[in-house]
Amino acid sequence: VHERPLLAVTMGDINGIGPEIIAKALARPELFDLCTPVVLGSIDALDAARAFAKPFPPAVAVTGADRLQDNTRVQVIGTGAPVPAPRPGMVTGEAGRCAVEWLRAAVRMTLDGETDAVVTCPISKSGIQMAGFRYAGHTEIIAEMTGEPDLRMCLFSDRMRIVHVTAHCSLREVPDRITPARVERSIVVGHDILARLGLSQRRIAVAGLNPHSSEEGLFGNEEAELIVPAVAACKARGIDCEGPFPPDTVFRRMVAGAFDLVVAMYHDQGHIPFKLIDMDDGVQATMGIPIIRTSVDHGTAYDIAGRGVANEGSLFAAMALAARLARGGQS
Amino acid sequence: VHERPLLAVTMGDINGIGPEIIAKALARPELFDLCTPVVLGSIDALDAARAFAKPFPPAVAVTGADRLQDNTRVQVIGTGAPVPAPRPGMVTGEAGRCAVEWLRAAVRMTLDGETDAVVTCPISKSGIQMAGFRYAGHTEIIAEMTGEPDLRMCLFSDRMRIVHVTAHCSLREVPDRITPARVERSIVVGHDILARLGLSQRRIAVAGLNPHSSEEGLFGNEEAELIVPAVAACKARGIDCEGPFPPDTVFRRMVAGAFDLVVAMYHDQGHIPFKLIDMDDGVQATMGIPIIRTSVDHGTAYDIAGRGVANEGSLFAAMALAARLARGGQS
Repeated sequence: VHERPLLAVTMGDINGIGPEIIAKALARPELFDLCTPVVLGSIDALDAARAFAKPFPPAVAVTGADRLQDNTRVQVIGTGAPVPAPRPGMVTGEAGRCAVEWLRAAVRMTLDGETDAVVTCPISKSGIQMAGFRYAGHTEIIAEMTGEPDLRMCLFSDRMRIVHVTAHCSLREVPDRITPARVERSIVVGHDILARLGLSQRRIAVAGLNPHSSEEGLFGNEEAELIVPAVAACKARGIDCEGPFPPDTVFRRMVAGAFDLVVAMYHDQGHIPFKLIDMDDGVQATMGIPIIRTSVDHGTAYDIAGRGVANEGSLFAAMALAARLARGGQS
Repeated sequence: VHERPLLAVTMGDINGIGPEIIAKALARPELFDLCTPVVLGSIDALDAARAFAKPFPPAVAVTGADRLQDNTRVQVIGTGAPVPAPRPGMVTGEAGRCAVEWLRAAVRMTLDGETDAVVTCPISKSGIQMAGFRYAGHTEIIAEMTGEPDLRMCLFSDRMRIVHVTAHCSLREVPDRITPARVERSIVVGHDILARLGLSQRRIAVAGLNPHSSEEGLFGNEEAELIVPAVAACKARGIDCEGPFPPDTVFRRMVAGAFDLVVAMYHDQGHIPFKLIDMDDGVQATMGIPIIRTSVDHGTAYDIAGRGVANEGSLFAAMALAARLARGGQS
């Protein structure tokens, strides 16, 4: 890890708000106290988007990864392949192809240790599929490149930290995807996150699956059979964790300060409370993989692309979080 | 409906915070502008709990239902059966028996038109089962007495109104319990609620079941097969409803003012956002039955019973809502 962590920031879909939010985030000088950003994307698109932001520091195209730690300028790395001019709001295969290439380059650089973390701007699933890829999104590409399919989708804000045991599957599939091993690994990932954040308190609450955590088996047996054993196993490993707790109050209790992180059983169990109160500066992260990867918590926003009204808050927070996770608790 | 709606307020479990929150709610004079409360419970317990509240107006025990509309005193109706002295924090079968008797009397009076709505304080499931009843809670008793098993659990606050398609079942059972007919009835119940509240705008959003509302079938087919037809049927009936919407942003949009009510597919989908931001003055209601019934949104709170620290906010809000629903949109 570099003294100021080096972040490989992908531009995502060039026709979305990626170029604009990168330009706006780079215009906030405090960013450079936290990290050294390196942009994987189009320098032309970045320069164009700087019409919406103070153009400082200057961007410079580089091809190699030499001397990346340089905060007097923003280094932009392409992939050598042609890059189309941005067509804000359009879904195109060319934009999809570039988005995948930039992501792959960022992951590769980070796996190789040239950069310390990957921070991603939104891509279009339709766009990458028009380009001939079968991926549903970033996560599958990252899983493929890191060789780790059992990764964890996490959400972060000032008040909430959430690790999901399951994520993008139908609600019907959720109960069968939950196993004691998956819950246990989720708790361990959560514990590692809190350690990486440098928190001295690492109180983890595990949510139940069913209403009222099943009320002792009245509405399901997954708590007793799948969650309780995982919590016990983690406690035996010395992790400060409790649960399962009723899902409809455990997030409130975290916000009130009773817990530092909640392990959620399924996508909406974690996403509903998070997006309700912390959407604007929320960050997603993929954990349980060999690299650190954070992401904005919004989509391409085609409807406002190219208009200068996009909010860079989530990207800034994603970069700050990536840098903090990369430092691994060392201030 | 009486000019000031007459509310049958049940004391619930005498060893919980029911007596205290009733005493505190009755001490708020503005309550009597909204309704005439009639307490189904123990006058001794109420008088004792008034140590924690201004004892006005005086309570008087009555046996019949004559001249209930009298705001110079609070009428307390028992059931003739013996009532134990409160033992705060204890779970007892005697308290459970009384709680069931008071609830039954309140429902019967309301079905008979003597009172306009039922407002319930918390009961203990263990207590009523110790008394020999097999009910899991209020709802089953009300379903039995009203002959309507297909009722709807609803949540209300200033910012949120939620109707649940399913409620107390395991998450695993949820997908199979959702049918177009049940969704359609839930939307209709929601529409009736908004009409009863006297709202001119009655914009209903229907949540999806799966993450991202399944993204066109990528994570489940319930949206297309079960929810879309129900929304279409309700639109054809002239109801202002839309959906299915992604569950993780639809509640945020309601809070921001885009919708007046959300139809939620399962218990925690609605309860997680509601309890996160509106637990303290939230109200539950049972709709789709021949009577109006609202309830506090908390339990017996045995841990603080008898100490004078309970908050009557939810009960006050439950009474205000019951009165407003009883008036049915007439100011």
